[in-house]
Amino acid sequence: MAGKVYLVGAGPGDPDLLTVRAMRLLQSAEVIVHDRLVSPEIMNLVPPTARRISVGKSAGFHTVPQDGINALLVKLAVEGHTVIRLKGGDPLIFGRGSEEAGELAAAGISYTYVPGITAAQGAASSTGVPLTHRGLATGVRYVTGHRARDAVLDLDWDSLADPDTTLVVYMGAANMAEIAARLIAAGLRVDLPVLAVAHATTPRETRMLSNLTQIGADLARTPMEAPVLFVIGRVAGLYETAALPLPRELRGPHLRVVGHG
Amino acid sequence: MAGKVYLVGAGPGDPDLLTVRAMRLLQSAEVIVHDRLVSPEIMNLVPPTARRISVGKSAGFHTVPQDGINALLVKLAVEGHTVIRLKGGDPLIFGRGSEEAGELAAAGISYTYVPGITAAQGAASSTGVPLTHRGLATGVRYVTGHRARDAVLDLDWDSLADPDTTLVVYMGAANMAEIAARLIAAGLRVDLPVLAVAHATTPRETRMLSNLTQIGADLARTPMEAPVLFVIGRVAGLYETAALPLPRELRGPHLRVVGHG
Repeated sequence: MAGKVYLVGAGPGDPDLLTVRAMRLLQSAEVIVHDRLVSPEIMNLVPPTARRISVGKSAGFHTVPQDGINALLVKLAVEGHTVIRLKGGDPLIFGRGSEEAGELAAAGISYTYVPGITAAQGAASSTGVPLTHRGLATGVRYVTGHRARDAVLDLDWDSLADPDTTLVVYMGAANMAEIAARLIAAGLRVDLPVLAVAHATTPRETRMLSNLTQIGADLARTPMEAPVLFVIGRVAGLYETAALPLPRELRGPHLRVVGHG
Repeated sequence: MAGKVYLVGAGPGDPDLLTVRAMRLLQSAEVIVHDRLVSPEIMNLVPPTARRISVGKSAGFHTVPQDGINALLVKLAVEGHTVIRLKGGDPLIFGRGSEEAGELAAAGISYTYVPGITAAQGAASSTGVPLTHRGLATGVRYVTGHRARDAVLDLDWDSLADPDTTLVVYMGAANMAEIAARLIAAGLRVDLPVLAVAHATTPRETRMLSNLTQIGADLARTPMEAPVLFVIGRVAGLYETAALPLPRELRGPHLRVVGHG
């Protein structure tokens, strides 16, 4: 009798920001196939008896290629296991959850999605910078700034350069200088605020406030550990007045925050 | 001694999709100020001893105007209460959480955000239609289709008409015919799939698959209960082959699903 696969979002990193369903599934997991991006605090919730398989996926680097992940999930389910496929953030936002589901469906394996708080929401709630705000942003847009090796960044710059929309760039640290330059060329303000956030909601959270002109140089001078999320738009300017403190565990002498400005 | 306000996202409706932190806060709530959009299943988690204040906010209709909500939160906190301000979805995506926070900060009241699964993610995980998918959508964008009385829909149509981006329209049922016509005029395919979803993740979930040309007529013929979320883009076409069943409680003789196609 075939097993089942739960395609589960781990959220931004803080175990308290897992959904109730994800928490329950993790705490009773038998087999868990997880990305490298899932925080150690969350992996600590998995019972010691569970079989853990890291597929080492991170921005631009897969220990196991996607085809191998798909085949692994099918194999484990065919063997009768209940499999938790755990991904950072949400499985259906840059998570390739629906690709894996397609392979499962083709093999006759049943699956369920469990959504997760995506990194942009984690960064917003932790830093205090909203994704929409009356008078500053009427909507929000998520894009990925990662590109395949040697490929060009194939984004619709004119469409992206909308001053009324908050633009959130996932996995964009390596290309942010180019992204910023292209957004300026497409018409965005040279001093449009950019808030860079890494490891939001975890004790390792760092932040840097910059702007479109400076962000490339600021990252070169003060590198941040990937993956870095960039919140670009007028809302990021609220960080000057409405910034919230870093996650509690980080306050005190061991503060590793990157200064802003 | 002043109290504190938690600006909490209730997620899409299924209590299992609350974050662990939100669940804990609700179960120990003393005073809760909630929108009408919060599902009855979630309100049932609040202890009977808690004081509940409905501010009746829904698309285009506020029982209590925003200024009144702000003043109420400040007043309750000044009186020393720990206040749970509960909103559908995520407080920082079309939730006005940061506006309320600004008023709290001005009054010297401390606050914390607790993110929630936004309606787009709830609809995606429930229906099986992803927000991004390799080859179909490189990003996702959330806009609101609501407009103030007699105002024009002030959206950047050329920017929105990006075939490589999934466009999710919140609160757009009343204006969807106009939105669809403008997107077609701006260059999107006349047969681009549109999936309309109401009450995603709850026993009242309904869905309708349509396309940009037909959605206005389809909604006129088969109205859906507001708020309705629209997922516009090539990913919505996956509903033909990858649709997941409605939430379990709904299956059986009392199925109230709106047929698709």
